Amino acid sequence: MSPETSYRGRRVLVTGGLGFIGSNLGRRLVELGAEVTLMDSMIKDYGGNAFNIADYKDKVRVNIADVRDRSAMDHLVQGQDMLFNLAGQVSHIDSMRDPVTDLDINCRSQLSILESCRHNNPQVAIVFAASRQQYGRPLYLPVDEKHPVRPVDVNGINKTAGESYHLVYGEAYGLRAVSLRLTNTFGPGQLVRHNRQGFIGWFVRTIVEGGTIDLYGDGSQVRDLNFVDDVVEAFLLAGARATGPARGKVYNLAGPEPVSLKALVSMLVEIAGKGSVRCVPWPEDKKPIDIGDYYGSHALITEELGWEPRVALRDGLERTVRYYERHLQHYL
Amino acid sequence: MSPETSYRGRRVLVTGGLGFIGSNLGRRLVELGAEVTLMDSMIKDYGGNAFNIADYKDKVRVNIADVRDRSAMDHLVQGQDMLFNLAGQVSHIDSMRDPVTDLDINCRSQLSILESCRHNNPQVAIVFAASRQQYGRPLYLPVDEKHPVRPVDVNGINKTAGESYHLVYGEAYGLRAVSLRLTNTFGPGQLVRHNRQGFIGWFVRTIVEGGTIDLYGDGSQVRDLNFVDDVVEAFLLAGARATGPARGKVYNLAGPEPVSLKALVSMLVEIAGKGSVRCVPWPEDKKPIDIGDYYGSHALITEELGWEPRVALRDGLERTVRYYERHLQHYL
Repeated sequence: MSPETSYRGRRVLVTGGLGFIGSNLGRRLVELGAEVTLMDSMIKDYGGNAFNIADYKDKVRVNIADVRDRSAMDHLVQGQDMLFNLAGQVSHIDSMRDPVTDLDINCRSQLSILESCRHNNPQVAIVFAASRQQYGRPLYLPVDEKHPVRPVDVNGINKTAGESYHLVYGEAYGLRAVSLRLTNTFGPGQLVRHNRQGFIGWFVRTIVEGGTIDLYGDGSQVRDLNFVDDVVEAFLLAGARATGPARGKVYNLAGPEPVSLKALVSMLVEIAGKGSVRCVPWPEDKKPIDIGDYYGSHALITEELGWEPRVALRDGLERTVRYYERHLQHYL
Repeated sequence: MSPETSYRGRRVLVTGGLGFIGSNLGRRLVELGAEVTLMDSMIKDYGGNAFNIADYKDKVRVNIADVRDRSAMDHLVQGQDMLFNLAGQVSHIDSMRDPVTDLDINCRSQLSILESCRHNNPQVAIVFAASRQQYGRPLYLPVDEKHPVRPVDVNGINKTAGESYHLVYGEAYGLRAVSLRLTNTFGPGQLVRHNRQGFIGWFVRTIVEGGTIDLYGDGSQVRDLNFVDDVVEAFLLAGARATGPARGKVYNLAGPEPVSLKALVSMLVEIAGKGSVRCVPWPEDKKPIDIGDYYGSHALITEELGWEPRVALRDGLERTVRYYERHLQHYL
């Protein structure tokens, strides 16, 4: 069953639907003919942004509610064929400053969502957005799904618990859940208002504004990145297969090619024709939760679901820079 | 530094201090000359029981408070040299029936305790009581610390998060924390009022009352068990080394010998001279969270801290049966 045909007329709920990935996924679901409900808490400083869906807002149902709101969730999940569960607190730094809020959103809300599904719609197919942060410092590269899960920050711990709840509810109550462990994702619609939700959005904004990026250390740290369209495609594939071969599985997403932060920034500067970079010492609060070099392997999802990243890093960066050159004012 | 000398005059806080393991640990700490505070929430149906400390209650400070009570925790942790962090919801079954309460006690409270330590007493040495339940269904036997962590119930997920918070706070804020992954523990002081906190307490009570034990399936499932005195010794060793070689480490405890449930019950019947056993089909709510055969390896803690179980299974069972023959009325 390809995504092209599996979403026509299907009822789909997206939590975190006005956020970066959720809103891109929503757009594609509308194109594929799904009946889409986007749910978002619109918590200040998180990724929800009405501009993200400005071009298709008349074709979806938007419901503002927090996933911790159990009665709202109980109602909204009814009658849905699929749930893309993307709501979350995604800042590693914030998770260390305010661990209890991270716990509330990434653990308690996931339990609440799963209890809602179990009692109101046990047939729904669920795709959960997990994170490469769960692995912690890589013991080997590229990191595959067999790599030990040893998170180095509270966010990574809580995302791990959130993912595990999905697997346990699948096993114990027959829910059909799949988890995708995302690596750094970038593209149009990403939060760029502050630098606490990953580096890439902040890099893009800084360069588009002609500013200077501070790289920690010598900038030789390696990462992999996925352009958001590729990530959306992975969610669609996983959702279409959640009741079949993907059921109960965990898959890594991974970028098309590893890149050093220094090389990444050089590319951005070149594409934008402005901005600059300098290396600075590690800040005290970031060093202990840094994970060194990281890049993942997407071999398993390639083999089982046929997914691979199709957008080259440079192409993705170009589309992202062009987007923020036009629309930055909606993201500040 | 042996436990014999490292606790004299030291200030020690035990959470879950009126519970099974906490109260046995407290007694030993008093013998070793420590200044002991036992903290317990006395939540109904959990393990806290005033009778557990009846023989030494005048030699300790008892403070009834929930570990989720942040201001109480902030106060109590001050000036302590060591914290034995044993408070927890330990029923796997209850964690599936009421996952949010399990989350509150096993995740939120752990974060709260660690935040208390970080802000009020960052020098304190902490030993956390983790669980073999974190491993889920064994991929190989005996299970060592390298075995993947794939819990099959909400309790296992939340204990994993609780343990991980300790390790992350150790790394990020310099707290000195050690985690012990306990297997089934038994002995005097154990809750026997209901059968939702592990099988062994319930088995002992049933036999002491001359009743019939229902074994699920054919009773061939293998487990390992530790007598509580051995577990107390492991906590003492880990606490004494928490600022040294054990800092940031995770150790399995494991029983002296694996045993099938059927053989275990036969031993109990023989020791008590009464009671009986029958095999019944698996109950619906327990089968999905059963883990099959399990026994662990204690090679790592033997090598690094010199711990090994010293009480043979039969001796431990004998002491336990004799205890409940005399004191059962205090545990009903």
